[in-house]
Amino acid sequence: MRTLSETTAGEDPPEARDITRKLARYVVAARFQDLPEGVRREIGRSLLNWLGVAVGGSRHEAVEIALGAVTPFSGPQQASLFGRPERLDVINAALINGISSHVFDFDDTDLLTAVHPSAPVMPAVLALAELNAVSGCDLVTAITMGFEVECRLGRAVQPALGNIGWHPTGVVGVFGAAVAAGKLLGLDEERMCHAVGLAATQPVGVREMFGSMTKSFHPGRAAQSGLLAAFLAEKGYTSSLQGIEAKCGWARLVSAKQDWQAITGGLGEDYEIYRNTYKPFACGLVVHPVIDGCIQLRNEHNLTASMIERVVLEVSPIVLELTNKKTPQTGLEGKFSVYYVAALAIVAGRADETQFSNGMVCDPVITALRDRVSATANPSVGKQQAHVRIHLRDGRVLESFIAEAVGSVKNPMSDAALEAKFRDLAEGVLPAERTRRLIDLCRSVERLADAGDVARAAATGSS
Amino acid sequence: MRTLSETTAGEDPPEARDITRKLARYVVAARFQDLPEGVRREIGRSLLNWLGVAVGGSRHEAVEIALGAVTPFSGPQQASLFGRPERLDVINAALINGISSHVFDFDDTDLLTAVHPSAPVMPAVLALAELNAVSGCDLVTAITMGFEVECRLGRAVQPALGNIGWHPTGVVGVFGAAVAAGKLLGLDEERMCHAVGLAATQPVGVREMFGSMTKSFHPGRAAQSGLLAAFLAEKGYTSSLQGIEAKCGWARLVSAKQDWQAITGGLGEDYEIYRNTYKPFACGLVVHPVIDGCIQLRNEHNLTASMIERVVLEVSPIVLELTNKKTPQTGLEGKFSVYYVAALAIVAGRADETQFSNGMVCDPVITALRDRVSATANPSVGKQQAHVRIHLRDGRVLESFIAEAVGSVKNPMSDAALEAKFRDLAEGVLPAERTRRLIDLCRSVERLADAGDVARAAATGSS
Repeated sequence: MRTLSETTAGEDPPEARDITRKLARYVVAARFQDLPEGVRREIGRSLLNWLGVAVGGSRHEAVEIALGAVTPFSGPQQASLFGRPERLDVINAALINGISSHVFDFDDTDLLTAVHPSAPVMPAVLALAELNAVSGCDLVTAITMGFEVECRLGRAVQPALGNIGWHPTGVVGVFGAAVAAGKLLGLDEERMCHAVGLAATQPVGVREMFGSMTKSFHPGRAAQSGLLAAFLAEKGYTSSLQGIEAKCGWARLVSAKQDWQAITGGLGEDYEIYRNTYKPFACGLVVHPVIDGCIQLRNEHNLTASMIERVVLEVSPIVLELTNKKTPQTGLEGKFSVYYVAALAIVAGRADETQFSNGMVCDPVITALRDRVSATANPSVGKQQAHVRIHLRDGRVLESFIAEAVGSVKNPMSDAALEAKFRDLAEGVLPAERTRRLIDLCRSVERLADAGDVARAAATGSS
Repeated sequence: MRTLSETTAGEDPPEARDITRKLARYVVAARFQDLPEGVRREIGRSLLNWLGVAVGGSRHEAVEIALGAVTPFSGPQQASLFGRPERLDVINAALINGISSHVFDFDDTDLLTAVHPSAPVMPAVLALAELNAVSGCDLVTAITMGFEVECRLGRAVQPALGNIGWHPTGVVGVFGAAVAAGKLLGLDEERMCHAVGLAATQPVGVREMFGSMTKSFHPGRAAQSGLLAAFLAEKGYTSSLQGIEAKCGWARLVSAKQDWQAITGGLGEDYEIYRNTYKPFACGLVVHPVIDGCIQLRNEHNLTASMIERVVLEVSPIVLELTNKKTPQTGLEGKFSVYYVAALAIVAGRADETQFSNGMVCDPVITALRDRVSATANPSVGKQQAHVRIHLRDGRVLESFIAEAVGSVKNPMSDAALEAKFRDLAEGVLPAERTRRLIDLCRSVERLADAGDVARAAATGSS
């Protein structure tokens, strides 16, 4: 196969040449002290957001089932399961923590690529940090490299990758996990290339699985496969040195689009994590502007459901394409009802995971208000935008226009909001003292002598 | 995503509907007593052939490296490694045995699909047979189901699957491993569908990896991923019930061709294993007719190199496209030199793995004869055919035309030849007594009370 790619190399634009090696060289050479302050700070925020979601999701049925399935085959108790007392070998721990962290669909999102960058990378590096003690600086550098590689590969092949039916997070996530783990293992350039090749040969995630437990299996398996790729490469297992760019390589196989320039352009100058976003609300991003607008009006005017005659929404057409369920019956269906989320936002003033229980969706006050919500699609309203008009029984009409929903790149969640989200998710899983400690550990991650402290503190065992 | 596939189901030909469920139903209902005698016999032959290759490959560098990489994370010592003393948990044992069995490229081949059917299926079911004792009948039934599903899926999507750059054995093998393991675990129809869905979301194998250790990683990982899919489904993990046929499902994602009829047509009447073939020679199938012709003339006329003036070959054009290396320097290059293999066949009378060592390729007698071999491509010569003309120094010209090379479907290896191949491969790895016992166990596999005996006997530990 080498021969094939060599003979066609002439047909490729020059920027396609040696992409795998260029990426590997960059990752191997990267140093913590060269990372901008903003990047380091954002890694801490990503870690806090992601860890909260993983702790919150750790009791989900999908996690219980997967844990039951792998426990009989698991090796030494090397790594923590977040939000749980059990310990597994690093490979299996990465799978379970990956599932936990994506099962609520509440983790971080790179809006340019629709990739959830933390879910494949964090479980791999945190498990590894418990196996071989590493400093917080090294952990931050490894995570940054994982994000760089997966989001850049995502930009190279998206949106064509997802359009044909792949789940981008699994298909690029395995690279993120492989290089981040490889960075912590100290792979040299050649071995890093082989780790990338071993990642390239294990894409995971078919879109048909959305709506089932297998969606959250995707980042978990990507974390696991990337970790295995790094361990194999470390010991000298060989793959291709052109796994990404070769004629019969990954990029041409999984997508009709290859923007080679996106992979290596500006490496070390621009950083993908600057575009990472965190969800303030535990449902699809498309309804976030509506929720944001409803909560703002509720809080400004101390609204209660009984004061309201009707709610009129003007939204981007995509909102009605995806969330036009008028009478949701389950928590999951509630996430796909713009009517429910608007009513919920006004009644509860929040939309975290507990608000999407089957019980909440049938709450009489919320359902009564829900039936007084109407929505129209307006192509001039952007995806980050919404018009909310609330007609009160006293004749007043309250209006709010959201230009950039909270949680978007231009209107990010504040540190305080991220901490509140973390506390909400950890509540009932971790004791309050442990929650506080984890917030401190994430904030100061780059100063930790032993980054494994983060993983151990997120478990409910005797650490 | 369910919705997407539902809305487009009307566009599909009727035979696409419920393919996943139909396959699952067939596998779940299959009974040993319904399998034709010829199928059961061929499973025993496939097992013997495959096990020999796995034992023979078990000391390869790729196996040593992979074993070194996974041992620190492996769980209880549940399953044997063929040809080796170590034991690993079933999931990791499946990976290592899968690598061992493909590392020589000497395992079985389904010629219609280019799928190597045993390498992903056998490691999964043999590991499982050590975990939960199962009868030989159940093992044979499970393997038959694995072969049916992977080869039928292969026919549905090949050759388009391989042409765009996938390694078919990894991409369909994961289904074979999942359903075979699922059958041994006794999954019901619904859970079998979920196992298939979990397999669908984990295709493995990018063709660029050919020529590196990662090629043999593909069936190993497919075995492992299929086994994990079955274990998860057993415990209730959900995926899609339409993982194969949905609009955003597996078949449309990995290939431009979907022959739905190939998947379910004649299920339970025709069996894929009837078309399984075993390699008599440890190199690519394209040069097998040449080797066959040379060995026949050698044996008929007691030829030695010194009697020969020159050798003239007329071959299918594909032979020169793939194996036109005039002066190979390494054992691996020797496999890609039709000149070397012809000279080797005449001098040694065989072409097993030991004949492709770096030393043999430089043997002065063979290289001198090699340089007197010429070959011309003739489009009227079929892929299973070759003309061999040997001009002797005494003026005689010996001719042989191979119409169907030994090892092809129409001219299969005899039981005796399979046993000789097994002994060759096992020599130096297993004691002779153990080799005899394994041949007996494979021959009588359907009569075994505990099919795990096969796996234990193939290990070099204290069983």
